[in-house]
Amino acid sequence: MKVGFIGLGKMGSAMAANILKAGHDLTVYNRTRERAERLAAQGAKVASTVGEACRGQEVVFTMLADDAAVESVVFGDDGVLATLPKGAIHVSSSTISVALAERLTAEHSQRGQQFISAPVFGRPEAAAEAKLFILPAGPRSAIEVAAPLFQAVAQKMIIVSDMPKAANLVKLSGNFLITSVIEALGEAMALVRKLGIDSHQYVDILTSTLFGAPVYKTYGKLIADGKFEPAGFAATLGEKDIRLTLAAGESLRVPLPIASLVRDRFLNLLANGGDTLDWSAIGSLPAREAGLPPK
Amino acid sequence: MKVGFIGLGKMGSAMAANILKAGHDLTVYNRTRERAERLAAQGAKVASTVGEACRGQEVVFTMLADDAAVESVVFGDDGVLATLPKGAIHVSSSTISVALAERLTAEHSQRGQQFISAPVFGRPEAAAEAKLFILPAGPRSAIEVAAPLFQAVAQKMIIVSDMPKAANLVKLSGNFLITSVIEALGEAMALVRKLGIDSHQYVDILTSTLFGAPVYKTYGKLIADGKFEPAGFAATLGEKDIRLTLAAGESLRVPLPIASLVRDRFLNLLANGGDTLDWSAIGSLPAREAGLPPK
Amino acid sequence: MKVGFIGLGKMGSAMAANILKAGHDLTVYNRTRERAERLAAQGAKVASTVGEACRGQEVVFTMLADDAAVESVVFGDDGVLATLPKGAIHVSSSTISVALAERLTAEHSQRGQQFISAPVFGRPEAAAEAKLFILPAGPRSAIEVAAPLFQAVAQKMIIVSDMPKAANLVKLSGNFLITSVIEALGEAMALVRKLGIDSHQYVDILTSTLFGAPVYKTYGKLIADGKFEPAGFAATLGEKDIRLTLAAGESLRVPLPIASLVRDRFLNLLANGGDTLDWSAIGSLPAREAGLPPK
Amino acid sequence: MKVGFIGLGKMGSAMAANILKAGHDLTVYNRTRERAERLAAQGAKVASTVGEACRGQEVVFTMLADDAAVESVVFGDDGVLATLPKGAIHVSSSTISVALAERLTAEHSQRGQQFISAPVFGRPEAAAEAKLFILPAGPRSAIEVAAPLFQAVAQKMIIVSDMPKAANLVKLSGNFLITSVIEALGEAMALVRKLGIDSHQYVDILTSTLFGAPVYKTYGKLIADGKFEPAGFAATLGEKDIRLTLAAGESLRVPLPIASLVRDRFLNLLANGGDTLDWSAIGSLPAREAGLPPK
Repeated sequence: MKVGFIGLGKMGSAMAANILKAGHDLTVYNRTRERAERLAAQGAKVASTVGEACRGQEVVFTMLADDAAVESVVFGDDGVLATLPKGAIHVSSSTISVALAERLTAEHSQRGQQFISAPVFGRPEAAAEAKLFILPAGPRSAIEVAAPLFQAVAQKMIIVSDMPKAANLVKLSGNFLITSVIEALGEAMALVRKLGIDSHQYVDILTSTLFGAPVYKTYGKLIADGKFEPAGFAATLGEKDIRLTLAAGESLRVPLPIASLVRDRFLNLLANGGDTLDWSAIGSLPAREAGLPPK
Repeated sequence: MKVGFIGLGKMGSAMAANILKAGHDLTVYNRTRERAERLAAQGAKVASTVGEACRGQEVVFTMLADDAAVESVVFGDDGVLATLPKGAIHVSSSTISVALAERLTAEHSQRGQQFISAPVFGRPEAAAEAKLFILPAGPRSAIEVAAPLFQAVAQKMIIVSDMPKAANLVKLSGNFLITSVIEALGEAMALVRKLGIDSHQYVDILTSTLFGAPVYKTYGKLIADGKFEPAGFAATLGEKDIRLTLAAGESLRVPLPIASLVRDRFLNLLANGGDTLDWSAIGSLPAREAGLPPK
Repeated sequence: MKVGFIGLGKMGSAMAANILKAGHDLTVYNRTRERAERLAAQGAKVASTVGEACRGQEVVFTMLADDAAVESVVFGDDGVLATLPKGAIHVSSSTISVALAERLTAEHSQRGQQFISAPVFGRPEAAAEAKLFILPAGPRSAIEVAAPLFQAVAQKMIIVSDMPKAANLVKLSGNFLITSVIEALGEAMALVRKLGIDSHQYVDILTSTLFGAPVYKTYGKLIADGKFEPAGFAATLGEKDIRLTLAAGESLRVPLPIASLVRDRFLNLLANGGDTLDWSAIGSLPAREAGLPPK
Repeated sequence: MKVGFIGLGKMGSAMAANILKAGHDLTVYNRTRERAERLAAQGAKVASTVGEACRGQEVVFTMLADDAAVESVVFGDDGVLATLPKGAIHVSSSTISVALAERLTAEHSQRGQQFISAPVFGRPEAAAEAKLFILPAGPRSAIEVAAPLFQAVAQKMIIVSDMPKAANLVKLSGNFLITSVIEALGEAMALVRKLGIDSHQYVDILTSTLFGAPVYKTYGKLIADGKFEPAGFAATLGEKDIRLTLAAGESLRVPLPIASLVRDRFLNLLANGGDTLDWSAIGSLPAREAGLPPK
């Protein structure tokens, strides 16, 4: 298939590499060209502009940091909207707002293009091994066309809805649920630690009994180690995702008290020097409030 | 081994039956004798008083609803403390306060008896199949003596500490973590449901990706079904466990904001007719606050 | 002075009338002309467009519902920015975001115009009696020019800062403080009411002892009466102000847990039919959660 | 009147002195006798035991730190209950739990004694000047007998109810409302301070407009000064009062989210070295979370 890929951060690079491996004709674009060059060695064509990455393609992926980044590549004279062929598909895998997904759906539709939201679950290592979970939502026929690409990057594809924005909300809600695990673990671990129970032993007890899911293992260990650098997923991005979750809750009129609590945790962390930390660092705040020394 | 067992609710009956099956010499006691008679058919002796269940035993279990129930069988003229032989072991599997565990440790020690806190994780079905997780804490030598009994009721024994109260805190913290899952799921499910996403489909997405742990499956389904009766674990007991968690946090000076939030959820539920519901019914409150109709 | 006034809602009409009474040469504009006509009877000229209300004036007030309304009259071809004379002063009394105040400051400055944020405290009755509190912030010289107008509408003028946005933040924080009083009163009143204490008697006790401020009297009575219609200040506006407060907290990185709680209260209220209610109706939610019947 | 007074802390000493000044025949008792001796100089008799302070009196006041202190002087062989004459009145002015007030009501009634809960609002300076507010609840006839004593210590007496515990709940709810003011002010002050607005100026703006009540002046100044020692009312007592408020909410099934938040603030403060600070020190925590330096 003729495919464009825009946005080659940790996640995007790994996904693009897996699309290449699956034998597709891939053109890549990144704001800083260097990251694109690396994929050239694996057979990708390198585009110098967004338009170059879109013209003539059947499918174009965008995998970018936030709403602003997506808006800057999609709208504008040489953007995705202006240059993607009629009938072609824009797959947005970025974690963006529900409102922007709605706008993208409408604008692509006006131009006779198709739009799929296809956010992913998984950290960069999972992306590298093509073990992401991908959650497409959009017109069924478009999803069928893009399915081989989804299978190239993910261990599992789950179709969410024919409304693209539904996938974005599911993705945001998933990140919110992860932060709720981090916060709850942080509280529980502060509590038992203050009675003298070892944090690693405690995480072992939890994860070998009721809480066997990977999220408990991953984040339990990070909090027990107290090691939040380098960031696998930055606190600034976590804060952004919770903000988007709350914004969705606001426009849908759904109170979300744990999300509100987690938002305040992120602001506390960021106001006190946490910009470069992993988002799980909010799990260290309950211990600090309990008067425990840092790990 | 010569064993006494006091408290034959759903959990206690199942545990006692498994101890019998393992070939021990078991004497059982329950406030309402009828539940004890059922175990007689399986070979148990039935005691008419607490003292009768304790005298001459090597190990006596208590598995009761709350602090008050434990205090009433332990203290007093014919109670566990007065009638358990010197050197024998009291195993408390009830979910009780850290403060009471501390007091039991001290009082048994004064009388030359041994005390183990051995709370369990698992719902009644797991107890019936001897698939509990048991978390003993206390003197190592006593735990070694009682280990065959623990293995008779559990799929796994994890020694927590030589301080009995540590096991109680771990148990309370585990129940707190479960309530945090219920609350977070309740919020996330209200959010996506208000956009039109089916609750069962959403739980499937979560549990087939990042949230594979049984707690997400069990409670996700209960909330999606909106069916909270009959109660597997009553809201009143959930409220009690969060109260004990907060009390431990208070005496250790550990702020626990999610626990505080969950406490308010339980009070809301109980103030509005929820006494007979399963504790997972607090997971339906976010939907109500979002203006969604009951399931 | 030659003055324009844009936005003749309950607050704006009262302020404009008081400026007229003080003898100024006033031109008024309102989207629905009818409200402007009423002031014509008192001597105001009626403008048909925003530009007509701005051209040739020394000072132009805007008193509008929200950021969107202010943006629509300020920006655009015939807007305040395009038509206000060089050196003239735009006084924004609307409760708008800190971010918009920042933008207005910059844009007016680029055009050689002056900008003052001058939000007010007080409900419509206070506006009618010229008993508002007005909180101007901006260039000192501009405030001196506009001071006679401020004195015409307010019992007291307090200069906040030379940064216009500071006044907006103070105004937002003041509304946040009022909502915190409403929420706290709602909780306390639910608590004592459930023990059988009469709500009006309770408010009397509070306001005749430690809590004599008008906010406690006003909102205590509203909650005790349970009468939230017609709205003096609508719940939708309250929700907006808390949203702007939280947005300011977010960009300044200041966690605001009570503001988060109040936000969830507003969403709950609005999701359950509260659009037409006074913002103090959030103070009835604690009683509902406590299982008490509506008043 | 023949009066006993038990508990001569800052508040109790001042109240006892004012009862003496009003000409009553006063016998005082304090655990550490020294504080009693000081009142002897003003004409008080000094009792060596609780019983000595109770026998033969018409009215006995208790003004003690907490439930435990009240229990220790009331119950027991030579306690208030055992030694107060039949028909005489026990006035409890301590801030105690609703549950203990209930128990005192029942036990005094069984012995043919009368019981009034008469908590007070006001800090020690107000007590010294006989400017407290006193809130008696109990049998109307008993309140009439004790009224001259109430008038001797207070600027105003407000009869709450004929159920003594109602006065205790009103007192607790009042302290809760004060903590809600401290927390809300702390949040608002952190917010505006981070934009560069001076804290004292901000408090002036608030208290000269909508928030003129003394609580805003007193606590606004304490937070703006950042000076929390010596404690006028200790954080440990504040924590206790919030705990009792939440306990009352729990038994009445009333969720109290701001009280829960404030409880966590107190635990945070106490876990980080705040034992000797004034309770208003919780108002400095929002600034810390916002990354602002201490004052």
